[in-house]
Amino acid sequence: MGIVLGPNQYGKAETRLVRIYRDTPRHEIRDLLVSTSLRGDFAAAHLEGDQSNVLPTDSQKNTAYAYAKEHGVAEIEDYALTLARHFVEDVGPVTAARIDVEEYGWDRIEVGGRGHDHAFVRRGGEVRVATVEVDAAGSASVVSGLKDLTVLKSTGSEFRGFLHDRYTTLAETDDRVLATSLDVRWRYGTSAADWGAAYAGARAVLLERFAGTHSRALQHTLWEMGRGVLQAWPDIAEIRLVAPNKHHFVVDLSPFGLDNEGEVFHADDRPYGLIEATVTRDDP
Amino acid sequence: MGIVLGPNQYGKAETRLVRIYRDTPRHEIRDLLVSTSLRGDFAAAHLEGDQSNVLPTDSQKNTAYAYAKEHGVAEIEDYALTLARHFVEDVGPVTAARIDVEEYGWDRIEVGGRGHDHAFVRRGGEVRVATVEVDAAGSASVVSGLKDLTVLKSTGSEFRGFLHDRYTTLAETDDRVLATSLDVRWRYGTSAADWGAAYAGARAVLLERFAGTHSRALQHTLWEMGRGVLQAWPDIAEIRLVAPNKHHFVVDLSPFGLDNEGEVFHADDRPYGLIEATVTRDDP
Amino acid sequence: MGIVLGPNQYGKAETRLVRIYRDTPRHEIRDLLVSTSLRGDFAAAHLEGDQSNVLPTDSQKNTAYAYAKEHGVAEIEDYALTLARHFVEDVGPVTAARIDVEEYGWDRIEVGGRGHDHAFVRRGGEVRVATVEVDAAGSASVVSGLKDLTVLKSTGSEFRGFLHDRYTTLAETDDRVLATSLDVRWRYGTSAADWGAAYAGARAVLLERFAGTHSRALQHTLWEMGRGVLQAWPDIAEIRLVAPNKHHFVVDLSPFGLDNEGEVFHADDRPYGLIEATVTRDDP
Amino acid sequence: MGIVLGPNQYGKAETRLVRIYRDTPRHEIRDLLVSTSLRGDFAAAHLEGDQSNVLPTDSQKNTAYAYAKEHGVAEIEDYALTLARHFVEDVGPVTAARIDVEEYGWDRIEVGGRGHDHAFVRRGGEVRVATVEVDAAGSASVVSGLKDLTVLKSTGSEFRGFLHDRYTTLAETDDRVLATSLDVRWRYGTSAADWGAAYAGARAVLLERFAGTHSRALQHTLWEMGRGVLQAWPDIAEIRLVAPNKHHFVVDLSPFGLDNEGEVFHADDRPYGLIEATVTRDDP
Repeated sequence: MGIVLGPNQYGKAETRLVRIYRDTPRHEIRDLLVSTSLRGDFAAAHLEGDQSNVLPTDSQKNTAYAYAKEHGVAEIEDYALTLARHFVEDVGPVTAARIDVEEYGWDRIEVGGRGHDHAFVRRGGEVRVATVEVDAAGSASVVSGLKDLTVLKSTGSEFRGFLHDRYTTLAETDDRVLATSLDVRWRYGTSAADWGAAYAGARAVLLERFAGTHSRALQHTLWEMGRGVLQAWPDIAEIRLVAPNKHHFVVDLSPFGLDNEGEVFHADDRPYGLIEATVTRDDP
Repeated sequence: MGIVLGPNQYGKAETRLVRIYRDTPRHEIRDLLVSTSLRGDFAAAHLEGDQSNVLPTDSQKNTAYAYAKEHGVAEIEDYALTLARHFVEDVGPVTAARIDVEEYGWDRIEVGGRGHDHAFVRRGGEVRVATVEVDAAGSASVVSGLKDLTVLKSTGSEFRGFLHDRYTTLAETDDRVLATSLDVRWRYGTSAADWGAAYAGARAVLLERFAGTHSRALQHTLWEMGRGVLQAWPDIAEIRLVAPNKHHFVVDLSPFGLDNEGEVFHADDRPYGLIEATVTRDDP
Repeated sequence: MGIVLGPNQYGKAETRLVRIYRDTPRHEIRDLLVSTSLRGDFAAAHLEGDQSNVLPTDSQKNTAYAYAKEHGVAEIEDYALTLARHFVEDVGPVTAARIDVEEYGWDRIEVGGRGHDHAFVRRGGEVRVATVEVDAAGSASVVSGLKDLTVLKSTGSEFRGFLHDRYTTLAETDDRVLATSLDVRWRYGTSAADWGAAYAGARAVLLERFAGTHSRALQHTLWEMGRGVLQAWPDIAEIRLVAPNKHHFVVDLSPFGLDNEGEVFHADDRPYGLIEATVTRDDP
Repeated sequence: MGIVLGPNQYGKAETRLVRIYRDTPRHEIRDLLVSTSLRGDFAAAHLEGDQSNVLPTDSQKNTAYAYAKEHGVAEIEDYALTLARHFVEDVGPVTAARIDVEEYGWDRIEVGGRGHDHAFVRRGGEVRVATVEVDAAGSASVVSGLKDLTVLKSTGSEFRGFLHDRYTTLAETDDRVLATSLDVRWRYGTSAADWGAAYAGARAVLLERFAGTHSRALQHTLWEMGRGVLQAWPDIAEIRLVAPNKHHFVVDLSPFGLDNEGEVFHADDRPYGLIEATVTRDDP
């Protein structure tokens, strides 16, 4: 029984790339974190230390920068597709490429009631993400999404009727705070969509469903959110939601002669519930 | 020559307290990080292990929760003043108290063009902060501010005419990206102000001056920002700004036959310039 | 075409559990981070909000604590197996359970040349990890490993003969610093091994191979490390290594009239090369 | 009443500098984080944007690297003193300089029972720190210390006899886990000491006193630790200890029919007690 090399890949991770569009006095900004990863015939690099098939990760970083200039950064999905196709098509030993992009949002600073031409403030809140994979046959998959979208309902959430076992001490409740920090990824059935519109639309549906659903559990809310996105966006084939249940515990104020009907909470860090669900189509 | 106890204090740090106002169907939320610290006659606790003068940090935490219910959390400065005065006035051995509060902003989720009654999305971006100190004489100091306000100008910033020594290799520039993440604290000359209005006003001035100043260095911009706040808010006696120069380096694309006139940047993490300045009044 | 629930799971993440053994005056400590995740028939919880099949994540946390008392924490793999089997066997709707454990090391404080009975100092450095999965058929998989093992060679590392494309500017080198922070996981071919001995042995082989291999690339070093572990430990079926290339750039001191033959480096944070490789057996 | 510039300083923060000594086959490594900060006549840079007195932070970084080559990095205190004196003596407008250094420890990898010549593993655990300030008169202050030294006692710690007020619910205990992550700084009465020996000695005393003191509160333990260092090291004029009380809560297992006499704990993240104490000499 011998020892052999299994699956492997390599690339340059976390290149912090900022692209300014300054063709007119009204500048635009794209603020990205780009990671590239290549698969292909790299066995000799491992087994014999022969690097003749290995494009340096430094060259991958250079390419990410050069493509931001040559091809621009309109939507991160298109930027990633262009970069991935280049590696697969133009670099001989490469048979597949994966590009991950995070985009950080900026708003114009308001001066005199109008957004400034070239001064910006970082938006904070959620980060837009995209992962693109292109293989040797030219087939492309696009997964987009967001992370760190933190939401909270101060009522309209219950958790009861659950299974009890020997280790169950949790009280049932018909009115609790529900809070989570969403990490959501949706896979498109196409490699050519209006990525920006779909992003804004999916984000809006997620928020509306979170707000509008009377939640019987975080699982229940996630299903409604995922279903809503698939209903609204036919281009999206499947959606995956990962949601920590950020517990807000009602503080017992009775020792101090005070009641506390859902007014004062301890927001706990760890541990947290972690709910993961995929919503898909039945002939995807 | 003997060994003696010097300055000391103790308290409960980083209590994550969320206060929901639910007296009407339109809820309000205050999301805080509260730290308390007490000074007083605690020598015996150190030297002899005698805790009879020591109010447990657990009791301080309980008090922070109870006061959020009994006295509410309107502006964080008032909440902190009330808490600090309690410790100094009601806990015998305590001669001074310091309360630090951070507040995380939430927006209502938009549903059908209107902010939802009880569903919120975390705002991200800057964090509002306040530090209050009350001493045995009842004298109170209030320092308010913000941190993590990240801003960027894509032009209108230069850095030249600087001192050169043997170790200087930096090129002069008359057009660079200027970016920073502001940590700003202002000390009030009073303990009773319209804290919320002053916060919003100071924040707006900081952003406008950042945008509007043709920057000859980050020092220059900080001075204009600090001066602007003092001009607009007579209640503010002094302001301190701490600003990392978040370097955005122009990527050299010439090896690839591409020019790069301020379009593609590497946003570097470390090291960073760090500029600290205080702006004050000449008879403060 | 309908919308349906796809794969889903839920559990309690990041329970910080410390177990003290104090049956004799010479105490022992186990310091863990435990995450549990359950799969099974939870469709109704999502689709209808019916929680009758859902064991609360709070109960899972309670179980982790209770098992640490009842069954103890000898090796984290055994603790995780016992916990996983309980969920699958004793909780009706559960068809599979996954338990992730991290263990933080502590050393005894030396007093008078001897390790103290009940005073400890946190070891720092790498974290030991294990992931166990048990399915409805009772089949168990055990994956163990470590993360944050940071190593550096100040010579004995080269990188040359690599592929050049249009975007390649990197110089070849036959003497560089090689540094990485290892994240390594090995899958056992058994569910009953001497986990502690295998951990210590695999860790030793990884370090020795890192030190002893004249590296022609990080890929080359990873292969030698992985191969070494499989050679030494027949119980291990496969090993996966994820290794950031923590770049140490030689600082150009020539403007100051100084040479720098691999003596002064800038240790950069981002971007970094990221190398991932699996080493396996040919009839696994 | 006019608006004026108050105290200000600027510099380069968090330069990650690694120095390899390779004069013999047995290499040595120094792994540092260096921050420099200068004070002086910089009013024109703020008020008028005139940078003629401003040595760029980039030059400060270059100097840190060049000095690591020219003057070496034996003890971080000496390295920092040399750098600070250079800025004050050689850069005209500078009247004071502050240098902060952190040092990360590395051990040799063991191969065949002997430490390897040029392969190292990061030690983890505490970080050694030093802060040096030099003023225009040439007077130097040296403050050394450590941070992130995490220690725990599984018995030999009590907390009782404390002050009770209306908000006190904490139970008294005569046997609890005591854990903290120490941040300790000691100020020398001299600018020429055996820094390495003092560091190792102070660290040993801190650990021994932590272990050996039957703790009646964290305050009590800090006093004994600080006192121990001053007793052992006459060169040290004063010591300051900042110590979070990392709470380990006994988990209530009684609902599951289990007792728990200090065996299973929840290690909580936030909030935490925070104890700060200075120990000094009575004619310092």
